[in-house]
Amino acid sequence: MFIARTVCREEETPIPQPGRNEVQIRVQSVGICGSDVHYFVHGKIGRFVVNAPMILGHESSGVVSALGDGVTSLKVGDRVAIEPGVPCRMCSFCKGGRYNLCPDIVFCATPPVDGSLRRFYCHAADFCYKLPDHVTLDEGALLEPLAVGVYACRRGGVQLGSNVLVLGSGPIGLLSLLSAKAMGAAQIIVTDLDQGRLDMALNLGAHHALRVDTRDPEEMARRVEEALGCKPDVSVECSGAAPSVQTGIYATKSGGALVLVGRGPYSMDLPIVNAAVREVDIRGVFRYANCYPLALEMIASGKVDAKPLITHHFPLEKTLDAFETSRTGAGGAIKVMIHCDQ
Amino acid sequence: MFIARTVCREEETPIPQPGRNEVQIRVQSVGICGSDVHYFVHGKIGRFVVNAPMILGHESSGVVSALGDGVTSLKVGDRVAIEPGVPCRMCSFCKGGRYNLCPDIVFCATPPVDGSLRRFYCHAADFCYKLPDHVTLDEGALLEPLAVGVYACRRGGVQLGSNVLVLGSGPIGLLSLLSAKAMGAAQIIVTDLDQGRLDMALNLGAHHALRVDTRDPEEMARRVEEALGCKPDVSVECSGAAPSVQTGIYATKSGGALVLVGRGPYSMDLPIVNAAVREVDIRGVFRYANCYPLALEMIASGKVDAKPLITHHFPLEKTLDAFETSRTGAGGAIKVMIHCDQ
Amino acid sequence: MFIARTVCREEETPIPQPGRNEVQIRVQSVGICGSDVHYFVHGKIGRFVVNAPMILGHESSGVVSALGDGVTSLKVGDRVAIEPGVPCRMCSFCKGGRYNLCPDIVFCATPPVDGSLRRFYCHAADFCYKLPDHVTLDEGALLEPLAVGVYACRRGGVQLGSNVLVLGSGPIGLLSLLSAKAMGAAQIIVTDLDQGRLDMALNLGAHHALRVDTRDPEEMARRVEEALGCKPDVSVECSGAAPSVQTGIYATKSGGALVLVGRGPYSMDLPIVNAAVREVDIRGVFRYANCYPLALEMIASGKVDAKPLITHHFPLEKTLDAFETSRTGAGGAIKVMIHCDQ
Amino acid sequence: MFIARTVCREEETPIPQPGRNEVQIRVQSVGICGSDVHYFVHGKIGRFVVNAPMILGHESSGVVSALGDGVTSLKVGDRVAIEPGVPCRMCSFCKGGRYNLCPDIVFCATPPVDGSLRRFYCHAADFCYKLPDHVTLDEGALLEPLAVGVYACRRGGVQLGSNVLVLGSGPIGLLSLLSAKAMGAAQIIVTDLDQGRLDMALNLGAHHALRVDTRDPEEMARRVEEALGCKPDVSVECSGAAPSVQTGIYATKSGGALVLVGRGPYSMDLPIVNAAVREVDIRGVFRYANCYPLALEMIASGKVDAKPLITHHFPLEKTLDAFETSRTGAGGAIKVMIHCDQ
Repeated sequence: MFIARTVCREEETPIPQPGRNEVQIRVQSVGICGSDVHYFVHGKIGRFVVNAPMILGHESSGVVSALGDGVTSLKVGDRVAIEPGVPCRMCSFCKGGRYNLCPDIVFCATPPVDGSLRRFYCHAADFCYKLPDHVTLDEGALLEPLAVGVYACRRGGVQLGSNVLVLGSGPIGLLSLLSAKAMGAAQIIVTDLDQGRLDMALNLGAHHALRVDTRDPEEMARRVEEALGCKPDVSVECSGAAPSVQTGIYATKSGGALVLVGRGPYSMDLPIVNAAVREVDIRGVFRYANCYPLALEMIASGKVDAKPLITHHFPLEKTLDAFETSRTGAGGAIKVMIHCDQ
Repeated sequence: MFIARTVCREEETPIPQPGRNEVQIRVQSVGICGSDVHYFVHGKIGRFVVNAPMILGHESSGVVSALGDGVTSLKVGDRVAIEPGVPCRMCSFCKGGRYNLCPDIVFCATPPVDGSLRRFYCHAADFCYKLPDHVTLDEGALLEPLAVGVYACRRGGVQLGSNVLVLGSGPIGLLSLLSAKAMGAAQIIVTDLDQGRLDMALNLGAHHALRVDTRDPEEMARRVEEALGCKPDVSVECSGAAPSVQTGIYATKSGGALVLVGRGPYSMDLPIVNAAVREVDIRGVFRYANCYPLALEMIASGKVDAKPLITHHFPLEKTLDAFETSRTGAGGAIKVMIHCDQ
Repeated sequence: MFIARTVCREEETPIPQPGRNEVQIRVQSVGICGSDVHYFVHGKIGRFVVNAPMILGHESSGVVSALGDGVTSLKVGDRVAIEPGVPCRMCSFCKGGRYNLCPDIVFCATPPVDGSLRRFYCHAADFCYKLPDHVTLDEGALLEPLAVGVYACRRGGVQLGSNVLVLGSGPIGLLSLLSAKAMGAAQIIVTDLDQGRLDMALNLGAHHALRVDTRDPEEMARRVEEALGCKPDVSVECSGAAPSVQTGIYATKSGGALVLVGRGPYSMDLPIVNAAVREVDIRGVFRYANCYPLALEMIASGKVDAKPLITHHFPLEKTLDAFETSRTGAGGAIKVMIHCDQ
Repeated sequence: MFIARTVCREEETPIPQPGRNEVQIRVQSVGICGSDVHYFVHGKIGRFVVNAPMILGHESSGVVSALGDGVTSLKVGDRVAIEPGVPCRMCSFCKGGRYNLCPDIVFCATPPVDGSLRRFYCHAADFCYKLPDHVTLDEGALLEPLAVGVYACRRGGVQLGSNVLVLGSGPIGLLSLLSAKAMGAAQIIVTDLDQGRLDMALNLGAHHALRVDTRDPEEMARRVEEALGCKPDVSVECSGAAPSVQTGIYATKSGGALVLVGRGPYSMDLPIVNAAVREVDIRGVFRYANCYPLALEMIASGKVDAKPLITHHFPLEKTLDAFETSRTGAGGAIKVMIHCDQ
C-alpha cells in the first residue's frame, strides 16, 4: 500500500539538497529486505507503525551527485555504499561505541523516516563508504545485510576454529554463514525448512545442511551434534521461529553463545534453565555498529563472494513486482535488487 | 528421607583418609542451601537424582586434621573454607579457566557424590582456603553462597557505578547485593514477595526495595525504573520464578545483562524479542569458578559483613530440625548453620 | 609567558556566543594541571607547541549562561562540569567508543585550542555534566583529573579484590588511588619521592606508602612485594620517571598490567624481556573516554572525597601566583584552584 | 655440548614407564627450535641455566606405545602431537586459564627438565593430541611453533579484517603470518634482514615484504604505513632486536597492540611515550595456553599449510649436523626436523 503510493508520487518529490556534512546521492541499487516486505504487507513491525506514506528501502548504494558543506572525504562521482542508520552522536551509546542502540538513531525506512528507494537521497557523508572500482553497486547494497551477518558473528564471538550453527538459511542466515566462514570457522552447519536454501548454503561453503522436518528441538540438537561431532560453540538464529530458538539453546555447547538475529513471536516458551545451567549466553542483535568497513573489506578482498545471493533484478518502475517476488520467493528468489537509475 | 538415613548412620562411617594432594578435615560449620532442602524433600534436582543414601552439605568449613602426600600449602590445625567442587583439571573447560563447566567435576552433595555434613571429610588441598584468625568458621562456610553472588555479579559485569537490580532476596539474592555493593554499584534495588527479606536487604545496604505485589512484569519493570531514575545496567535474577525473569528482561537497560541464578520451571514463556532488539544479554550461572579467593578477601577485609545472614544454629544431632527451619523459613530464617563438632 | 599575555588581554575578548548544540558557560573553578604549568614554563609538550597566545585551563566548571540552538539537556543556571575534549564524532575512533584517540579532537588548552581559564566559555552541551546541588563547583573542576584516574584504573582492569601499585603521588596518582579504592581494590600501595605526598596518600586510604630512596627498580619492586605480601595485579605509573616505569615492570604480577599515565622522557631503557616473559601488559593512557559520568557519580555518591586534594585557591586576577604555587608545590600545594567569577 | 653428551648416552637410558594419566610415546619427529640451539651453544637462556646434562627437544610428535593407569582418551598406536609443558593444575594461573604462567610448569628441555629428543618419552595424556590420519608426524611436531604463532595473534587481537605487521620472518614469524592469515587478516606485511625469508613469506601469502636496510625505526614505520596504506592494527615482533621493537611501536595504529614474541637484549631503549599517548598496548607472549587444539584444526582442515617451512631432515644419529644446519641456516634452512625412529 504505502510503497505503492510512494512510488507513484516519486517523480513529484523535490530533489533533496545535502545539509552540512551530508552528500546527495543518485541512488543505484536497493535490495529488498524482509522488513521492507513486512512493512509493505502489514504496515508495521512491533512498535514501529507506518502512519503516513513512507518510502521504503535501506539496503542501498549510489553515486555521489552533490556535496554539502564540510564534506572532504568524498567527491562528486564517487560510488558509495550507504549505511542507513545515522545516530545522534551525543548519547552514551554513541560515545561508548554501540551507536546501534542510540534511541535517537535515524534509520532509513523505519517509520517515520523515509528510505532510499528513490532517485535522489541525502545522507551523512561519514556513513557513506566509497567502493573500490572492482566492487559493484549491487555488492555495495549487499553490504547492509552482510553487516548484519558480521555483527551477529562478532556478538557470538565466532573466531578461527569455531564450530558454528546457523539456524535459518534466508539472506541473513546465508550472510552469517559467509561471515563465519571468513572468520575462520572450523565447521558450519545450517538448517532450514527449504531444501533449495540448504543447497545454496552448501554451495556457499557450509559443511553440513540439515532440513528441519521435526518440531522437536532436542531431536534437532542431537542431529546437529551428530553431524558436527560436537556441539557448536556459537549458534546464530536467523529465523525467529520458536522451535529454532529452542534448538539453538539445546544445541549450543556449554559456555557458548546463541545469537538472536531473526524476529518471530514477541514472546515464546524457552527451556531457559537448560541455557542457564550450561552458561549458554543468549545475545540479541539490533542491526549492527562499526561493521560496514569490515563488510566492505570482505567483499573487496574477495574473501566473501556474496553475488550468488542476488537472484533477481527489477527497475524502479517495477518495484511492485520486485516486492511480490521477494515476498513469495518465486523463482528461488533470495535477494531481489531494484535499480533506480536505469 | 535420605538425609535422615544418612545422619542416623553417620557414626558408623569409617573416618576417610586423605589421598595424594588431599587433606582430611574435621568439619565445623555447614550451611544449609536451598538445593540441600530440595534434595531432602524431593530427592532430585533436574537430571540429578538421589538413587542411594547420600550425605548432604556443601557450604562448609573445618579444621585440617591430617595431610595427604604432597600437601605443602596447609598444615594440621589450619582453619579452612572448603570449595566443594573439584574438577577433572584435564578437559578444555578446566584448562580454559571455566572449571565450573567441567563435565566430570565432583561436587559435594550432588548425586551420587556425598557432601560434607559429617564429622570428617577429605578434600583436595588446593580447594581449601586457609582462614585468617579473625574470620570465623561460620563465615568460612558462607563463602560458598557468597562465591555464587560474586560470580553472578562478575558474569553480569557489575562494576563501579553500575545500577543493579537483584530479583529475589533469599540468601543468594542478599549475597549478590553485598557483592554488587562491594564492587561499587551506584544504586541497588531488590525485589521480593516477602517484606521481611526486603527489610534485611535494606539493612544490608540496598538503596531501594520493591515488594512484588503484581504478576505483571512490565509494571514491575516500570517501578524499578521509577525508583532508580533509570533502567539498571545489570539484573541478577535469584528467584527462578517466571514473572521475575520476565521483569528482568523488561527492566534491564539496552545493552545490559540479565544474569540467571535462580532455578525455577525448566521452561517458561519469555518476551525474548524485547531482550533481543535491545541487546539485553541473558547469561546463566552454574555455581562459580575462581571466586573463593575473592570471597574470602571480601570477608577478611571487612568490605562485606555477611554475618547478619546467619540467623539460626543447630548441632549436627539436630540436623532434621535445621532442615525444617530452613525449609519453612520459620523465625525469619535466612541462613541456617549446622555445627558438626560440638 | 603566553598565559601572562592571555590573562592581561582577557577583559578585551568578546564574549563568545554558543553555536548549535553548544552552551555558553560563566566559568567558575579552574584547576591547574601539570600540563598547564608545562606549557606556561616551556611553551610546548612534545609535538604540541604554543605558537601564538593561548588561553590555558581545562579542568573547569561553571554555570550555564546561554543556550545554543538545539540544546534541551541543560538550562540557564545549571551548574556543570566541563569535559574539555570534543571529538569529531565521525571517525572510526569516535564511532568505536574510543573518542580520546580521535585525531581531530578539540581539547581545551592543547595548542592551538584555547582553554577555559576565562570568564565566559562555549562548549558542546553533551560534554557538560550537570552537577547535583550538593556537589561543589570545585569538585566539578576536579572531575577532569579524576576521570584520568578512573580511566587509568579501567585500562588496568582494577576490580574488586585487586592489589594495586600507584607509582607517584601527585594529583593524578592520588586520584588513581581514590579510583582504585572505589573499585574495591584489596590493597593499594603508593610510592613517591616526597614524604608529604605519601602522608596525604595514607590519609586518603592507601594501605602502604613507600618512599623512593633508591634508583634501583628491582629493589623497589622487592619492597612493594614485601609490603603487599604479593606482587600487585595492576600498577599505575603516574610520574613518568624511568626508574619508576622500570619498577612498575619488575613489580607487577605475571599476567597483570602496567598502566602508563605519567609522561617523562620520550625514550627510556626498559627491561622489556622481563615484562614480555611474564606477560605484564604495558598499556598507555591518553586522557580518557566515557569517564565523566562515573567520576561524577563517585563524587556525588560520596564514594570518593577528593576535596582534600584542593589545597590552594586564587582569584582569576592572581593567576600568575596560582601558577607559581602549582609549579613549586609551595605550601604543600597539590591541586591549585582558580576562581574566575569572584 | 650437552646435547652431544646426551645423544651419546641415549642408548643406555632406561625406557621410561608412564605414570598415572600418562602415556609412553615412541618419539618420531622433533623440530629444532631457536631455544634448543641457544641452550646448545650458550648453555643458558636468561635465568634458565643448564647445569647438568639435559636432553633437548620440545617440538615433537610420536606414537603411543603404552598407557599409564587412568588413560582412556588415547590407545596404543595413536599418532600424537605433544604439547611440551605440563602445568601444576592447582595454582591460580592454572585454574584461571593461563596455565602458561604457572610457576611450577614442567616444560620439555627447559632446565632442568629433559626434552623429548630421544626414542621413548612419557607425557601427560591430556597434553597429547591425536593426529588424524592425513596429518603427518612432521606436521604434528610443527604444532608447537604454530601454537606460538596462534597465541601471539590471539594476544594481539588479530581478527577478520585486521592489518598485521610481522617483524622478523624466522619460523615463528612465518607461523604468525600463517595464523594471522587464517584468522582473516586483511593485509599482512612482514619484515626481515634476509631476502630469502621475505620471499618465503610472500610465497606463504604475505601481502607485502619489507627488507630491513636501515636501523631507523621511524623510517621503517613510514614504509610500513606506505605499503599498507594505513598503520597496522596489530604488530607481532618475532626478532627481539631493539630497532624492530621500536619499529613496532612507531608503526602500530593508535589503540592497537604490539605483541612481543622474539627475545633479544634483556633491556632496551624504547620510545615508550609514543606508545603510551597513542594507547598502543605492548603485550608479551610466554609460550601459549589452550592453543594446540586450534593449531591442529588449522593444519587438519587445510586452512594452513605449514609443510613448506620444513626444509631439512636428519635421523637422530645426525643430531649434531641437524643443530649445525639450524644454527647456521645453511641451505636456506628454516625448520630442521630430526627423526628419532628411522
